[in-house]
Amino acid sequence: MSKCGVVELSDLGAEVVEVVVPCCLPISAGELSMSDARRMAAMFKALSDPVRLRLFSKVASHPAGEACVCDIMDVGVTQPTVSHHLKKLREAGLLTSERRGTWVYYRVDPSVVAGMSIMLDLRPAGAES
Amino acid sequence: MSKCGVVELSDLGAEVVEVVVPCCLPISAGELSMSDARRMAAMFKALSDPVRLRLFSKVASHPAGEACVCDIMDVGVTQPTVSHHLKKLREAGLLTSERRGTWVYYRVDPSVVAGMSIMLDLRPAGAES
Repeated sequence: MSKCGVVELSDLGAEVVEVVVPCCLPISAGELSMSDARRMAAMFKALSDPVRLRLFSKVASHPAGEACVCDIMDVGVTQPTVSHHLKKLREAGLLTSERRGTWVYYRVDPSVVAGMSIMLDLRPAGAES
Repeated sequence: MSKCGVVELSDLGAEVVEVVVPCCLPISAGELSMSDARRMAAMFKALSDPVRLRLFSKVASHPAGEACVCDIMDVGVTQPTVSHHLKKLREAGLLTSERRGTWVYYRVDPSVVAGMSIMLDLRPAGAES
C-alpha cells in the first residue's frame, strides 16, 4: 500500500500540479496504515452526501464528459450550495475543474476514481465480468 | 439504475433476511435518483471515517476471511468505539456478523462492496487490468 495517497508533482507544461495517487490495491490485500486510511476516508467522505453524490453522477454521466454548474443545477439546492459541493469533490481529488469564460467546467478524474474502485474490488483476480 | 439499493427478501432456510442490492452500473451510465443517491451515500459514509476504514480493511484482509473484535482492537480507540464502528459498517451493509460463543465475528459482504466498486469503475468495458 506504499503508493496509496502519495502526493506527486507533475510538470504539465509550465504548470506544476499536485496529484493525489490513489490506492491501487484491493483493501483485502492488507490493512491500511492510519495515514492511508485518512486520505482514502476523505475521498469516501466526498461521496457521503446524497446531493454531492448526485452531482458527481451528473458530471460523470454527462454526454460531453464534462459539465458546468449551469448544466447540473437542478438538484434542489441553491447554486452556492452546488458550488460548495463541487468544491468539496474537487478538493478530494474526484473532480478536476477548468474555467472557460463565465463558467467553470468539471470533469471526473478517472485515475482517482479508478483507485477507489480497485480498492473496493474484492473479486478474485480474473473474475471481472 | 432501477436495481440500485432495492431491498429484497431472501429466504435462507427458515430465516428471512433483508438484502440491500447495491448499484450494479457505473455512475457514468446515468445520473442517480435522489433515493438511490441516499442509499449509496450511506454506504460511502460508512467508509468516510479513518478509524472505521482501517477496521474495515482489517476485516477485509484477515487471513481467515472473518475477524472478531478481539482480532482487530489495535486501532488506538476503546473497544466500545470499535464495536460502534463495526455496527455502523454492518448497518450500512458492508459487513455481516455472526455471534459464536463470546465473540461476534465480522466478514465483508462481497456483493455490496462489489456494487460500490462497479459504481466507481469508469473504465471502458473490457479495460480491466
